[in-house]
Amino acid sequence: MADKPSLPKGTRDFEPEVMLRREYLFQTIRTVFRKYGYAPLETPAMEQLSVLTGKYGEEGDRLIFRILNNGNFLEGVSPEALADASVLGPQICERALRYDLTVPFARFVVMNQGSLAFPFKRYQIQPVWRADRPQKGRYREFYQCDADAVGADSLLFEAEFIAMYDEALSRLGMDDFTIRINHRQILTAYATAIGHPDQVVTMTIAIDKLDKIGEKGVREELYRRGFTEEEADKLFSLITFEGDTMAKLDFLEKELGHLDAGKTGVSELREVFRLYQHQSKFKGKVSLDLTLARGLDYYTGTVFEVKVNNVEMGSIGGGGRYADLTGVFGVPGLSGVGISFGADRIYDVLQALNLFENVGLSPVKVLVPNFGEETLEAGLNAVRQLREAGVSAEMYPDDSKLKKQFAYANKKGVPFLLMIGAEEAAKGVCQLKDMVSGQQETITLVEAIEKLASAKG
Amino acid sequence: MADKPSLPKGTRDFEPEVMLRREYLFQTIRTVFRKYGYAPLETPAMEQLSVLTGKYGEEGDRLIFRILNNGNFLEGVSPEALADASVLGPQICERALRYDLTVPFARFVVMNQGSLAFPFKRYQIQPVWRADRPQKGRYREFYQCDADAVGADSLLFEAEFIAMYDEALSRLGMDDFTIRINHRQILTAYATAIGHPDQVVTMTIAIDKLDKIGEKGVREELYRRGFTEEEADKLFSLITFEGDTMAKLDFLEKELGHLDAGKTGVSELREVFRLYQHQSKFKGKVSLDLTLARGLDYYTGTVFEVKVNNVEMGSIGGGGRYADLTGVFGVPGLSGVGISFGADRIYDVLQALNLFENVGLSPVKVLVPNFGEETLEAGLNAVRQLREAGVSAEMYPDDSKLKKQFAYANKKGVPFLLMIGAEEAAKGVCQLKDMVSGQQETITLVEAIEKLASAKG
Repeated sequence: MADKPSLPKGTRDFEPEVMLRREYLFQTIRTVFRKYGYAPLETPAMEQLSVLTGKYGEEGDRLIFRILNNGNFLEGVSPEALADASVLGPQICERALRYDLTVPFARFVVMNQGSLAFPFKRYQIQPVWRADRPQKGRYREFYQCDADAVGADSLLFEAEFIAMYDEALSRLGMDDFTIRINHRQILTAYATAIGHPDQVVTMTIAIDKLDKIGEKGVREELYRRGFTEEEADKLFSLITFEGDTMAKLDFLEKELGHLDAGKTGVSELREVFRLYQHQSKFKGKVSLDLTLARGLDYYTGTVFEVKVNNVEMGSIGGGGRYADLTGVFGVPGLSGVGISFGADRIYDVLQALNLFENVGLSPVKVLVPNFGEETLEAGLNAVRQLREAGVSAEMYPDDSKLKKQFAYANKKGVPFLLMIGAEEAAKGVCQLKDMVSGQQETITLVEAIEKLASAKG
Repeated sequence: MADKPSLPKGTRDFEPEVMLRREYLFQTIRTVFRKYGYAPLETPAMEQLSVLTGKYGEEGDRLIFRILNNGNFLEGVSPEALADASVLGPQICERALRYDLTVPFARFVVMNQGSLAFPFKRYQIQPVWRADRPQKGRYREFYQCDADAVGADSLLFEAEFIAMYDEALSRLGMDDFTIRINHRQILTAYATAIGHPDQVVTMTIAIDKLDKIGEKGVREELYRRGFTEEEADKLFSLITFEGDTMAKLDFLEKELGHLDAGKTGVSELREVFRLYQHQSKFKGKVSLDLTLARGLDYYTGTVFEVKVNNVEMGSIGGGGRYADLTGVFGVPGLSGVGISFGADRIYDVLQALNLFENVGLSPVKVLVPNFGEETLEAGLNAVRQLREAGVSAEMYPDDSKLKKQFAYANKKGVPFLLMIGAEEAAKGVCQLKDMVSGQQETITLVEAIEKLASAKG
């Protein structure tokens, strides 16, 4: 009973200081989602196990957290099952925890297709659970933050998502990031152009590692897979072309425009850039990355990935167009585009760049110390008026020694003290102390409220 | 694979229309919590099973959702355990889903007691999971919405919580509700006064049912438990006293003031009312309820319960003072006060009273129809400017027939259309259509943006 309690490995408590920052982060992204017409959706943490299994590959299936059936869960279980966890598991667990937001979203769309207005634009900010081995930056419970538009082929959505990345990250104070884009058909065209049209996947897997293993490593992998040196040369001549986005598109058109896939890829990317420029002030933060792949199976058109340039960090977001969201649930042909924000990584970037400094780290802006019965009413009256003016305020709950009250304010990080002792009460004034600068002034309550309402923190 | 997917029993998807209302509901409550100096906390959905078991009684233990260990969970399990689910369960599940917010909060306080500033004031708005039989209004996954102040005995917190209930519910537009309060020591004093000091619990269980089974039912239960008719008469003479709160307090003082418990209960309630009146404009929404008990074990001082008077509905919130939050984790003596908002019930009340009508039910305020290439740029430009002015806006993604575009707007509930066809583009104007009134006017884009920025919806 009285054992020291602990947290499950890979999970976290978000204490107030962290929560205030996380709420600011999510609220900023949410506001952008809303401004672009994306609607909130929440699905339950628990899904039927059958909804999740088989959707994330074998490795994914192993990492799903399953929920034990309640009551006598052994009833009806075959004796053989009791000898083998992999057989017993599915027999004693009907439900499991959400592994990502995409499959539950697809399930929702299938179950509600009759009543939704298509194109259906939704965002979803919820935790997911994975039984991964915990390590630095990898948790077993973490938030995903997704937006998708499904049921429409328009490239306007791709342009909209670029604008949303740009606006959300800029609003968070980041200014040195790159939204890299590419098109899966360009990758297909590479494979055809170098004479391996049937090896798109092998080639893409190799290219995808360029960041990590360099050109030499990629070449070695290609050779192992049966590509010749000449073919690898040709591939690198394509993917290492340098120039701005428009020059790259012209180059790709010249080199790959004779292939169907190349033609589609180039013309769609041109249209995405054109639509984006009309939609937002072009800030040079978007660039065509000829090596970008973003995984293997799911995406079919434009792909995105966002990187920060001034902090060492993997991608902080990504996404792309897919041809078939709901086929696994028997409703094929529903295409869409989606993006994701990597909340934990963005949090770390903002922390590293000191971009949380304008977020109040105190849950309360002003503490009114408690000087005892004589001035209690004046103090409570001040607290009430502060709150009425929208200023978060609290009175210290008892007339402990001032030293203790000040220590509380310091520990909580409260930026202001508003003091009404007997003398101040008699004169109808108060003392306002700025805990950061240490400055203290005697002013009227009305003046103090005005100052506090406009002060940051 | 292609089976029609479904949701686990007792769980819900929150579709956009419902989410917009829920976000408004939670945001309103959250704003009040923040204004009173309460800080956000989030704990993981998963806790160690050992943290949860034994905290909710036998019935509660049965309703906890346990998470199956990953990998070969049968390793090391004894053969006997395989024959009995109640033995096997704890051997194959280390973790479980949060059952309420109080136990995880207590665990957090114990694990972080060295670094927290006491009194520690936190709020927490997160889902919990219970394997209850689902029925109307009872779910297996639902949000709890709690605020607590721990580590201080000051009655200021009780007064603060009454003010928070009052402000949050008033901000949600409710005006006919009662915050009922009582004190556990008053209940103790009843038992002593009628000659059964050792039967406080039995008596309280009976009184707690007064709403449901009436005086006759309560009397029958008391008789069964060995109370005499005379004792029951005495009890009813105490709990049925009528009058305003101050009259009730005077009455209790007269009847029970000679008993320690009675004296404490009455004087603490007097102080709570006094502090509340200084803290908020007294609106007559708070009243002393001489029969209020709020469960049995946990609370030790003031107890609260909130009821709506103009909608048939159980209590929409409750709470009280407790003497020992963390004793179960080996840290005794940490007292506090807490309240809870019943989010699902409040949602139903707001729905019944039409109080969601000012909440935009469309995720987007204005749709700009797509008239094709010729006016695409003008349309995108309008969308960009609307968003810059903080108005949520979207362009229809392709130049489908207008009928289809309008149907989309209708289905999504978009309140305004802003149309820029060739004629309007040439003249530098647009047509703004109010989808509710049907009115349409030709104005400049600047005028339209101004109107939309201040329009509700």
